[in-house]
Amino acid sequence: MALVPYVSEDEATGVVKEVYDDILTSRKLAAVPNFWRAIAHQPEYLRNEWNKLKAILGSGTIDRKTKEMIAVAVSATNNCDYCTRSHTDALRALGATDAEIVELLSVVDFFNGSNAIASGLKVEYTPPVPAEP
Amino acid sequence: MALVPYVSEDEATGVVKEVYDDILTSRKLAAVPNFWRAIAHQPEYLRNEWNKLKAILGSGTIDRKTKEMIAVAVSATNNCDYCTRSHTDALRALGATDAEIVELLSVVDFFNGSNAIASGLKVEYTPPVPAEP
Amino acid sequence: MALVPYVSEDEATGVVKEVYDDILTSRKLAAVPNFWRAIAHQPEYLRNEWNKLKAILGSGTIDRKTKEMIAVAVSATNNCDYCTRSHTDALRALGATDAEIVELLSVVDFFNGSNAIASGLKVEYTPPVPAEP
Amino acid sequence: MALVPYVSEDEATGVVKEVYDDILTSRKLAAVPNFWRAIAHQPEYLRNEWNKLKAILGSGTIDRKTKEMIAVAVSATNNCDYCTRSHTDALRALGATDAEIVELLSVVDFFNGSNAIASGLKVEYTPPVPAEP
Amino acid sequence: MALVPYVSEDEATGVVKEVYDDILTSRKLAAVPNFWRAIAHQPEYLRNEWNKLKAILGSGTIDRKTKEMIAVAVSATNNCDYCTRSHTDALRALGATDAEIVELLSVVDFFNGSNAIASGLKVEYTPPVPAEP
Amino acid sequence: MALVPYVSEDEATGVVKEVYDDILTSRKLAAVPNFWRAIAHQPEYLRNEWNKLKAILGSGTIDRKTKEMIAVAVSATNNCDYCTRSHTDALRALGATDAEIVELLSVVDFFNGSNAIASGLKVEYTPPVPAEP
Repeated sequence: MALVPYVSEDEATGVVKEVYDDILTSRKLAAVPNFWRAIAHQPEYLRNEWNKLKAILGSGTIDRKTKEMIAVAVSATNNCDYCTRSHTDALRALGATDAEIVELLSVVDFFNGSNAIASGLKVEYTPPVPAEP
Repeated sequence: MALVPYVSEDEATGVVKEVYDDILTSRKLAAVPNFWRAIAHQPEYLRNEWNKLKAILGSGTIDRKTKEMIAVAVSATNNCDYCTRSHTDALRALGATDAEIVELLSVVDFFNGSNAIASGLKVEYTPPVPAEP
Repeated sequence: MALVPYVSEDEATGVVKEVYDDILTSRKLAAVPNFWRAIAHQPEYLRNEWNKLKAILGSGTIDRKTKEMIAVAVSATNNCDYCTRSHTDALRALGATDAEIVELLSVVDFFNGSNAIASGLKVEYTPPVPAEP
Repeated sequence: MALVPYVSEDEATGVVKEVYDDILTSRKLAAVPNFWRAIAHQPEYLRNEWNKLKAILGSGTIDRKTKEMIAVAVSATNNCDYCTRSHTDALRALGATDAEIVELLSVVDFFNGSNAIASGLKVEYTPPVPAEP
Repeated sequence: MALVPYVSEDEATGVVKEVYDDILTSRKLAAVPNFWRAIAHQPEYLRNEWNKLKAILGSGTIDRKTKEMIAVAVSATNNCDYCTRSHTDALRALGATDAEIVELLSVVDFFNGSNAIASGLKVEYTPPVPAEP
Repeated sequence: MALVPYVSEDEATGVVKEVYDDILTSRKLAAVPNFWRAIAHQPEYLRNEWNKLKAILGSGTIDRKTKEMIAVAVSATNNCDYCTRSHTDALRALGATDAEIVELLSVVDFFNGSNAIASGLKVEYTPPVPAEP
């Protein structure tokens, strides 16, 4: 069980019901995911979090699959159980294979490692110097 | 200055020289980036780190630009100065605009935030339930 | 310099100008802070981020000073330079003394330490058992 | 099970027994929490950790409930299972409601997100410029 | 279950089989640990990760037990379940007692705490000034 | 400058003076390091932090150099500027060479990377199965 009870679809009223309906419709779901049901104890925050997610995923030039990859990369770096599961499932729904998921994590592995050594040794960045043609 | 001296191209011999030459050639650079010059005090580690990076960036189906975006996402989450500068420059060299870099970071922002709340409330993940058609 | 140019007040139009005006008015400022000027390359994201912050700071029962303390606690844990400076300044504007800021950080110190040992030893949580009266 | 066995109250002698007695008395508990029973394999460290916690919680001007909120904020950011459970329970014992706990986590969410973007874009902090009255 | 299926020893061919055989032989194991079986969906990455680990553990002047302690310290700081379990077991196989494991974690505790306060207060480092003899 | 003023040796009285004298004597220093001068705004916390550090470094079976290596590993993982500088200097004073510092960071690199992939793929740990002799 989560550390707060979930606000069920039946209990939802007002702003919470509006957001729940938008989630179900725009995501084509039969049940509101637990993440949203946990934060619904603060209706205005729920609305703003959902609107922010819609703005982030629905605008710009980076495609949805790449955004889900970034979500997995951040979630693996932070070791968030809910989030790695949720975004890996989302990636699979967008066609990602086992090999592609491991490829993604191999990139996450490398840069978490190199981040630690660059920070630990205080390496100074200078822009790359291209070879003369 | 970094916390260890850099091993310059002039000082490089043996394995270090081989790796430096491979970096300069395959990246078309006139100077070895400081990251590699800092870790060259351990030649076998330098070789393996470089080979791992080549394997990660050079294989699979995820394109190079997406991999650089993942690198930025991880580096921003870890707050690595060298790494955010280096991979943002790499993204720009691959054509990313200011708007695209902020779009990328907006995704990183959202998921760092939602990771903390999902972990903090111990929200349980259950796979999404699609609406019946 | 930041990794993207700042969008100045003079360059702001449309959604960006609306948000900038709201920031200046509601915060009683003569200049838009750099954080907002950096993310303004994505106008819809800027609007949603600002609305979310207003919803979070302006509602509920936790007072503003406590919220700024939480901001410092999170920023110190993540080692964010901009954020520790910004929220420490905000705390001072709300009356916090040097002693109070160190008191806050002493709490942050203790729990970052105890988090690592509880996670590292995989200590199991069981609810506290009150002594019989 | 934790990665080390717990030192039970029955096994406690010397410094460990002194600290256990102090924990039970000052916290009005019938059993020593697992955190302290896990670290009791190093009696001097146990004593110093307990004394540090008492000094941090028992002095200064920040009230106890705020300190527990800071503990939750740090623990959620670090994703410590034991710690989020323990300090959420402590907050509830001090009267926090579901809505207040979600309000707290909404602040933690926002600043974890904004930390990542401020660090990722290397935004420079300058003190706020107040509007002229 | 992991988020990708494990590649079993029976399914291993080519590069994967070579690496599996090397793991079993050099580690004197009857089964390939799950970590390697999860990443085997990317054979070249598997090979490079294994070679990097061998280079890191098998060269230099820092002894193996110290390297496992460093692994525990990093894993506790990152709160990695698999990794804290795996490297604590490795430490025990090298003779570490309960007291030694808690001693190690006490060091990890202290520095995670002091890291947060040094970063949070932006304390400036200056090299130590030895007392005159 | 740090975010709070340092309490100088001249300003120190009472508990602060006692701790400062103990630091100068036991560390054979002519000046109190900035870390302690920053937290001295909370005298009881200063005393407990110093006592905890003395207990951690001065007891047990893990030698001092290994403890400083663990401090560097934690500090690099957390990207703490003050702390990586301070503990690298401490390691050098104990005889560490450039090669040894890079060797240490190579271990930190590997395990930060493998932590992210083990967490990201939710790999399950099972104890190693030794080969039959």
